[in-house]
Amino acid sequence: MKIFIAQQNYHIGNFEYNTNKIIEAIHTAKAAGGDLILFSEMSVCGYPARDFVEFDDFVDQCQQAVQKIKLHADTIGVLIGSPAQNTLQKGKSLFNAAYFLYEQEIKAEIHKTLLPTYDVFDEYRYFEPAFEWKVVEFKGKKIAVTICEDIWNLGDNPLYRICPMDQLMHQQPDLMLNLSASPFDYTHDEDRKAVIKANVLKYKVPLFYCNAVGSQTEIVFDGASLVFDKDANLCKALPMFEEALEWVELNEDGTINGEIVEPASRMPDKELNPATLEEELNIAQIYDALLLGIKDYFSKMGFQKAILGSSGGIDSAVTLALACDALGAENVRAILMPSPYSTEHSVDDAVQLSKNLNNPYDIIKINDVYESFLHTLSPLFNGLPFSLAEENIQSRSRGNLLMAIANKFGYILLNTSNKSELATGYGTLYGDMAGGLGILGDCYKVQVYALARFINRNKEIIPSNIIIKAPSAELRPNQKDSDSLPDYSVLDKILYQYIEKRKSPADIKAQGFDGELVDRTLKMVNNNEYKRNQFCPIIRVSPKAFGVGRRMPIVGKYLS
Amino acid sequence: MKIFIAQQNYHIGNFEYNTNKIIEAIHTAKAAGGDLILFSEMSVCGYPARDFVEFDDFVDQCQQAVQKIKLHADTIGVLIGSPAQNTLQKGKSLFNAAYFLYEQEIKAEIHKTLLPTYDVFDEYRYFEPAFEWKVVEFKGKKIAVTICEDIWNLGDNPLYRICPMDQLMHQQPDLMLNLSASPFDYTHDEDRKAVIKANVLKYKVPLFYCNAVGSQTEIVFDGASLVFDKDANLCKALPMFEEALEWVELNEDGTINGEIVEPASRMPDKELNPATLEEELNIAQIYDALLLGIKDYFSKMGFQKAILGSSGGIDSAVTLALACDALGAENVRAILMPSPYSTEHSVDDAVQLSKNLNNPYDIIKINDVYESFLHTLSPLFNGLPFSLAEENIQSRSRGNLLMAIANKFGYILLNTSNKSELATGYGTLYGDMAGGLGILGDCYKVQVYALARFINRNKEIIPSNIIIKAPSAELRPNQKDSDSLPDYSVLDKILYQYIEKRKSPADIKAQGFDGELVDRTLKMVNNNEYKRNQFCPIIRVSPKAFGVGRRMPIVGKYLS
Repeated sequence: MKIFIAQQNYHIGNFEYNTNKIIEAIHTAKAAGGDLILFSEMSVCGYPARDFVEFDDFVDQCQQAVQKIKLHADTIGVLIGSPAQNTLQKGKSLFNAAYFLYEQEIKAEIHKTLLPTYDVFDEYRYFEPAFEWKVVEFKGKKIAVTICEDIWNLGDNPLYRICPMDQLMHQQPDLMLNLSASPFDYTHDEDRKAVIKANVLKYKVPLFYCNAVGSQTEIVFDGASLVFDKDANLCKALPMFEEALEWVELNEDGTINGEIVEPASRMPDKELNPATLEEELNIAQIYDALLLGIKDYFSKMGFQKAILGSSGGIDSAVTLALACDALGAENVRAILMPSPYSTEHSVDDAVQLSKNLNNPYDIIKINDVYESFLHTLSPLFNGLPFSLAEENIQSRSRGNLLMAIANKFGYILLNTSNKSELATGYGTLYGDMAGGLGILGDCYKVQVYALARFINRNKEIIPSNIIIKAPSAELRPNQKDSDSLPDYSVLDKILYQYIEKRKSPADIKAQGFDGELVDRTLKMVNNNEYKRNQFCPIIRVSPKAFGVGRRMPIVGKYLS
Repeated sequence: MKIFIAQQNYHIGNFEYNTNKIIEAIHTAKAAGGDLILFSEMSVCGYPARDFVEFDDFVDQCQQAVQKIKLHADTIGVLIGSPAQNTLQKGKSLFNAAYFLYEQEIKAEIHKTLLPTYDVFDEYRYFEPAFEWKVVEFKGKKIAVTICEDIWNLGDNPLYRICPMDQLMHQQPDLMLNLSASPFDYTHDEDRKAVIKANVLKYKVPLFYCNAVGSQTEIVFDGASLVFDKDANLCKALPMFEEALEWVELNEDGTINGEIVEPASRMPDKELNPATLEEELNIAQIYDALLLGIKDYFSKMGFQKAILGSSGGIDSAVTLALACDALGAENVRAILMPSPYSTEHSVDDAVQLSKNLNNPYDIIKINDVYESFLHTLSPLFNGLPFSLAEENIQSRSRGNLLMAIANKFGYILLNTSNKSELATGYGTLYGDMAGGLGILGDCYKVQVYALARFINRNKEIIPSNIIIKAPSAELRPNQKDSDSLPDYSVLDKILYQYIEKRKSPADIKAQGFDGELVDRTLKMVNNNEYKRNQFCPIIRVSPKAFGVGRRMPIVGKYLS
């Protein structure tokens, strides 16, 4: 049996685009003699469609797409994903479903059992879990169809009471097919392989895993679809971060016809990757995820050109390099906006960076705007000493200038804030926190440096001066980040323990960090929820990013 | 049996504050000879604690609070709410629980069964539903304890598969106690009474319902706790929007000792209130909810003073009047910031408003700042005609000035955008969309007018000129909202059908609205998700507010 895996990049709610893409792959597979083609979870509408599925009209359009695709599933079996009405009048009104289409009919409708409702996932908000489990019969084979999370409980996942594959095994399936929309984070790649292998080891039938690819606002789906034979050898690994349509020939005995990519013996058994903050940790993957995150945000929003403030610091340098790679240097405009407190080398460094990248840039001094604010406010400020207010005026003047240029010429403002700054509130609302998309908001400062080294791996793109100088906001004379914040090498480790690991203050102190510093840091994190609440979407690369996956009460008083 | 209901206003995560408040009420009840005292859902930590409960340390602190309170529950029975560990190793690691404390012991732990996971609720994200149902025995009575949503399925709520009260009825309870944290919206008051009455009619035992009061960032809990006797007569109704500690004497036969507030015969049977957009619709309740929303945001964040831009328009006028009522006029500073395009009457109207309210105000012309932006940008703008960019510069100059004054003197900026503007994207990011709390963001423009009339019900506080003149942003000569937007009386109805009712374009057109206008309006709503995503929390008064309760994909392409 020749089985195709269509790893595709959908656009949420863009039914025409998604449907055409699916139909095209069906025709390619048919032309190549495919028996069956597998698509990813919620393929007709894109994942996550969020509250769109609460609109009956949206679900109707999903169903119309299924009907349209059905007509192309004549001599080839097709598995696609879509929301489906729950007609039982019991539980939520929808299922997260897969449709098995063949002979221009819906031969089976499969419902997802395990509904992830944590971090960025809200599936229990919309869907009812499956009531029953049945294999699909096709060309003499019994197929166990599951959807994404369904294979993430091997009986040992404490999150769930049910193991859907255990249910399906009562009917002795010959193979397992899984439709997924499983997002990237820098710990996930190895976990995924290990979990899929563990399923094959447990159930002893081959598994075809089709994952979505593409970025949807903040969530990056990395593809990396996989095929395992019945002996848990990896027989096919689709690429990360790009679309692909590939196939394998499944033999009668459950082996795969073709070369083994990685034998079971060489892969570790299920052993989840402990995340660390080390640079070695897949910085190339993070780079690729950010690239796709930028590309897809622009293409799906219908934008072409980006703008950003280029300060001569490391964050804007890395953001600029990423944006030039994603959108083409000619489409990324850098604006250098020195203030009275900017050092000369900052401008020089930023100019050199744009020369290296060959992207357009302008220098606009903010002195006049800054002075006009001070002058206008002087009757109220009445000679009071320089304070945070004046620092923020500079930052917001820059934000205002960038937005004005963006509005005039149709640019989208890229935000350059990193995760360490966002965590501690070291940024100005409507100033350096302005922008439509946060490129580095899920990368700690130490990871931003790692990205800079990665960008410079072959030649110096980011001037070394930008990498080696001490970080500074340059909003008052001789200012350094270290005046207000602990050293990033310490700060980031504390933040990581609190944000990613959700450790208590006592636990973190027990790891050897200074007690006063830990308390002060966690307090900064919790006191700045209100700022992050107004921040733009952040491209998610970690298991715990600020944004939709982390929901904190703003008026909360915990550790603050 | 003398039963107390403690309708209290908790501060999320402020354990010392919440615990002391609970203990104080216990002592008051004991001193008055109470047998039992009932608190609201999640009383020890406040509701909703959101992702705080994912921190073991936070849950530990909840448990410590329970232990502390337990010592005061000696001769009086106490029912409090708290997260509890799920020790079964099956399902999510926590329960949403109630503890029955008596004789300084935990006599029973009750778990919530129906976990709301829709709109602003995320309970399935954190909690496992109950595995079993058992009445609590106390002083010869059997008590059925349920938590909030548990009584919202009378067997006919399609959201749920289980009806916990049906389970508990097998043990023939003598009374029902319910701990709630059920938020206000302008449709909810009558619904709640009807649902509670329906429970009593079905199970024929008295019901004591204790709801939380107070605002938690955007969600307003209105209290309005209730007691019904076994014949479904309303025997006690606690006030809305304020704390209260009240009691009733429950007789042996299930009747209540005391006057009946509202006999069952005079209340409608369960018949949910169809929401409309009419002014009559509880505008006084909306006013009170907004007032509490402002008050609690400031008190829980530790703020005293507010600032806002006073334009002479209806939105800022209503916001200013509300803020003065909530915080005291002396604590609310209005800044009038005319631009070159402002009309003279706007300043006059805004001055008159502040004189009527007796709050401090300043007039700051933005001309210099605006000109300095134009001058600084002139090399780039290069003589291009006036456009949206220049309008936004004015709006952002105001935002920047307000934030500068706020930063300098410790004010919090109140945002004055209404729901119609936010829906259509008729506002400037970082300009008039700036601010820490959205006061009117869940009120359509027609409701803002209704609030203005309500504010003026006894005397003219908002000058009539502000109410009668045509709305304008005054960012270019002779600008009117109606240049860009449909008339609000039509627009708001379309928005309501789409946002609150989730109707399809076809359904809305079938109601008689112009087809092109409907399409254009829904497209505006969906195209401006990115703007609302960066907006501050909005005090929620409707069943569907922008913010945490409405989650849309930004890159989505539905109806856009």
